[in-house]
Amino acid sequence: MTLTQETSARTITRKPVPHHASLIVKGKDRTGIVAAVGALLSRHGANIVSLDQYSDNPQGGAFFQRTVFSLDNLQAVLPAIEHDLQERLRADFELEFTLRDLSVPKRVAIFASKSDHCLLDLLWRHRRGQLPVNVSMVISNHPDTAEEVRGFGIPFFHVPSMGPDKSAAEAEHLRLLRGNVDFIVLARYMQIISGDFIEQVGVPIINIHHSFLPAFIGAGPYAKAKERGVKLIGATAHYVTEDLDEGPIIEQDVVRVTHAETAADLQRRGADVERAVLSRAVEWHSQDRVIRHGNHTIVFA
Amino acid sequence: MTLTQETSARTITRKPVPHHASLIVKGKDRTGIVAAVGALLSRHGANIVSLDQYSDNPQGGAFFQRTVFSLDNLQAVLPAIEHDLQERLRADFELEFTLRDLSVPKRVAIFASKSDHCLLDLLWRHRRGQLPVNVSMVISNHPDTAEEVRGFGIPFFHVPSMGPDKSAAEAEHLRLLRGNVDFIVLARYMQIISGDFIEQVGVPIINIHHSFLPAFIGAGPYAKAKERGVKLIGATAHYVTEDLDEGPIIEQDVVRVTHAETAADLQRRGADVERAVLSRAVEWHSQDRVIRHGNHTIVFA
Amino acid sequence: MTLTQETSARTITRKPVPHHASLIVKGKDRTGIVAAVGALLSRHGANIVSLDQYSDNPQGGAFFQRTVFSLDNLQAVLPAIEHDLQERLRADFELEFTLRDLSVPKRVAIFASKSDHCLLDLLWRHRRGQLPVNVSMVISNHPDTAEEVRGFGIPFFHVPSMGPDKSAAEAEHLRLLRGNVDFIVLARYMQIISGDFIEQVGVPIINIHHSFLPAFIGAGPYAKAKERGVKLIGATAHYVTEDLDEGPIIEQDVVRVTHAETAADLQRRGADVERAVLSRAVEWHSQDRVIRHGNHTIVFA
Amino acid sequence: MTLTQETSARTITRKPVPHHASLIVKGKDRTGIVAAVGALLSRHGANIVSLDQYSDNPQGGAFFQRTVFSLDNLQAVLPAIEHDLQERLRADFELEFTLRDLSVPKRVAIFASKSDHCLLDLLWRHRRGQLPVNVSMVISNHPDTAEEVRGFGIPFFHVPSMGPDKSAAEAEHLRLLRGNVDFIVLARYMQIISGDFIEQVGVPIINIHHSFLPAFIGAGPYAKAKERGVKLIGATAHYVTEDLDEGPIIEQDVVRVTHAETAADLQRRGADVERAVLSRAVEWHSQDRVIRHGNHTIVFA
Repeated sequence: MTLTQETSARTITRKPVPHHASLIVKGKDRTGIVAAVGALLSRHGANIVSLDQYSDNPQGGAFFQRTVFSLDNLQAVLPAIEHDLQERLRADFELEFTLRDLSVPKRVAIFASKSDHCLLDLLWRHRRGQLPVNVSMVISNHPDTAEEVRGFGIPFFHVPSMGPDKSAAEAEHLRLLRGNVDFIVLARYMQIISGDFIEQVGVPIINIHHSFLPAFIGAGPYAKAKERGVKLIGATAHYVTEDLDEGPIIEQDVVRVTHAETAADLQRRGADVERAVLSRAVEWHSQDRVIRHGNHTIVFA
Repeated sequence: MTLTQETSARTITRKPVPHHASLIVKGKDRTGIVAAVGALLSRHGANIVSLDQYSDNPQGGAFFQRTVFSLDNLQAVLPAIEHDLQERLRADFELEFTLRDLSVPKRVAIFASKSDHCLLDLLWRHRRGQLPVNVSMVISNHPDTAEEVRGFGIPFFHVPSMGPDKSAAEAEHLRLLRGNVDFIVLARYMQIISGDFIEQVGVPIINIHHSFLPAFIGAGPYAKAKERGVKLIGATAHYVTEDLDEGPIIEQDVVRVTHAETAADLQRRGADVERAVLSRAVEWHSQDRVIRHGNHTIVFA
Repeated sequence: MTLTQETSARTITRKPVPHHASLIVKGKDRTGIVAAVGALLSRHGANIVSLDQYSDNPQGGAFFQRTVFSLDNLQAVLPAIEHDLQERLRADFELEFTLRDLSVPKRVAIFASKSDHCLLDLLWRHRRGQLPVNVSMVISNHPDTAEEVRGFGIPFFHVPSMGPDKSAAEAEHLRLLRGNVDFIVLARYMQIISGDFIEQVGVPIINIHHSFLPAFIGAGPYAKAKERGVKLIGATAHYVTEDLDEGPIIEQDVVRVTHAETAADLQRRGADVERAVLSRAVEWHSQDRVIRHGNHTIVFA
Repeated sequence: MTLTQETSARTITRKPVPHHASLIVKGKDRTGIVAAVGALLSRHGANIVSLDQYSDNPQGGAFFQRTVFSLDNLQAVLPAIEHDLQERLRADFELEFTLRDLSVPKRVAIFASKSDHCLLDLLWRHRRGQLPVNVSMVISNHPDTAEEVRGFGIPFFHVPSMGPDKSAAEAEHLRLLRGNVDFIVLARYMQIISGDFIEQVGVPIINIHHSFLPAFIGAGPYAKAKERGVKLIGATAHYVTEDLDEGPIIEQDVVRVTHAETAADLQRRGADVERAVLSRAVEWHSQDRVIRHGNHTIVFA
């Protein structure tokens, strides 16, 4: 048995970090970008805490850099840094950038339906301090999980969504979300999201698909996996685009299965993979570790 | 996003199965055991649903067999089958056996301390119908999880256990447990269990150790893993014996880590492995899939 | 460093086993099959060494059983056992069965092209005694690997196969193979196999596909995987049928990749998965551990 | 089956790259290091191709950075860069650094005994262009693999090493190695290496240990793993130090096993893990991706 001294797991945190900011830089690769960013941050007294970069072709390909830096009087200096980056990176290098104070957690809305395994896993990790986000609300087309969600101290909104016309439901969604969230997570939300909604809501949407995409696209992936006799089943977290199940993949994982497992067994086994994959995707997104580029992602995990 | 038709995850079950029984046979390997068991069950009209066997040496080594069979009037016939097995297996083959009606779930007590990830994962899987057990009670040396546990409809008992002398606490444990449970799970219970208690309680005890045993035996395994610079960390579920961390291993798993992760990160990552490994061990034990043999286990998973 | 006493790895073997036979039984599930097989083998003095069974539905579903038994005078008694099985299983239970003396290794022909990683891995494992087969010959549409293959003491035949008409090449293949092999392995053989050839050659054909089927069916899977931005790449060993990449899957595995890996990197990483997956499939097939059923496999690994 | 157009796997390479250099920087963390390195390289017209850095504590902890940069006239400019680094990093920041032209592959000697799986895997990967090294020689205390090694075009030296006194053998080793190699790989070399030898040879030595260290230190790890009943077995590549099996770990991996596998099976399964783990460690070391720090490694893989 175990003898470890008592340590409360609740003290282990990936909480938002004070005095830290993330800088994401993206654009055409050219000589000197890393040096220019380094020099600029250095001039403001910032200390680089971590730096990841990737170029898909050093001869003028696409360049990506994630830098986390610390600075004691961060909030006071951030506008000046932003101004300098604007001048130096946008003007001299034609690069895009995003600068974000990491002490301000991203605000997320979680959409769910009846299946609660992904939803509860996110709420549970959030309560343990493992997800550096503010969960603004949970929206579901079923009332079943209301009590449990509210037990976590999170607002729950029941928005029914029957039939093929989603416009009423989506209008209600937009009313709830506008101005209140920085991204959305579909935690096994079993309703189609319209292109209109994606455009109007204007924030990234992360979905968990219950298969190893692009295998078993669409409905009923576990039944299809059983039918095809595969030896591994998986799950995929991806950004939602208008093309169903075709958005940029953030994370995937699989688990081994055998002939002896029924489609229901696969679904049960898959649920564990789904919640693990989704929680990793949400954690990485909330820490600015995922950069979208065309239909791909650069993940500095 | 996903389009699967609504299916409630709560309908997927590993519930106790009606009309099914498990038969575990154990002893010295001899020619004809499988045939004898098959013939005996067949005579009673039983249909073999699954059969696993293992012999560590066909020439007189140790033999193990797990058979699950179905029979419409199971409860009526079980005593007659038991009687026949007694005569045939014990008398002719000198084998030990255990016969169990699988429609009667095993009763379990879960011991926990402050860390709640293993405890909550078990309760959550139980509620989803994934663990074919009755959770009789949760016992903790801390009151922190009382409300949450009771929210699952499970009795919670707070039994403080301070200082080196565990006799008062263990006496209280025995009062609560006696006659009420078929096995015990230590879900990150951070107190020493005495040899006396193990003997007196008389039911199997499953512990989750937060390392890949036999590496990092004892206290503080994640700190030790960080110190040694390992590239994988793991967890081990095992039966508790008087020898600390030395009991028969039921299940193990690992996850990859890097130099960049702190001991606290390892603990956080390890928590996911711990709950996965422990839930598999509990599921297998509750389905009679684990056979102890000396300091080893045969696992027909 | 290591201090292990010298042990030659070449002494570790999965060589064909003397006095052992495998019995594969397949058909409609009915009460009493396991018992009948057990009793029959017992009557002939056979000792069951391992037994695996699976039923996809105990109420009249499909039933599969693999039994390995030992018997001192196996070759003398095998015909009598076969006769009894014929009567008992075919007549009473309407089951199909296959009985095979495991001391006689299956004979295999390996087809290859320019890529040599799967071919060499098989030959290397075979030399170490890890594959219980006789490699009758290697056939390639390129002469490149001739010297290396012959260095293993294996006959090598170069059969060019240019253009869309494969009939001349396939006629030559049939001349070489007929009567000489029990199964064929396509070890990254980059030519289409015609339905005619599959029918005429009359032995199972195992192929390794360089993706996690059904994802990335067809040509260029690593380029497609890079294009789709997946986070895992895989390989699939399957039986060849007339439907390209659609045959029964035997084994699959995957490996994690990142955005930073090029399509060429994926191909290089994938090569390790391919050879591992193919060698497992060949080992299991040669030990009668894989049972085909419709477009699926039952794998008693 | 597969339809991919013919591509020779031999064209996929991790060959030494022309015009590229690696710069490893190591020392006490201070504000401005990344910027200073970037500015310095930029001044010489170098383009940063990849950059990884890690600090175990931004407040004065240990700092590590690996930078790969490209420069058309690299060989001409390298001395000037080195001179500037000397001044800027050593003088201003008190950092150590190593600068290396990546077009010059590291020279390696491989030590082996009778077991050939790790040796052959390295030679085979090297021939495929997957290891950016020059294999200068293979040294073995057994003559068995001489012909095979020479078939790869690599010099083979048989240096017997019987009895406890290794001084004669080690003297011969030193004569062969001195001035000829940049690092040594013990590919299942079953002899003790003395502290004297480690000191005198003066280059890093990588060993593959056939267990998941620190579990099963010392001789006979697979027998010990079987005895302890573990459910996973592994392998560990580490740098050799005077303390047996205690050196800095470079890479580890594991594979799942069951009760049914004998110690010989574990050894056979483990061989696959050993060769995979060792080849990754050798690849990373040869690309300057592994930085030693005390008894740990920073691996920028």
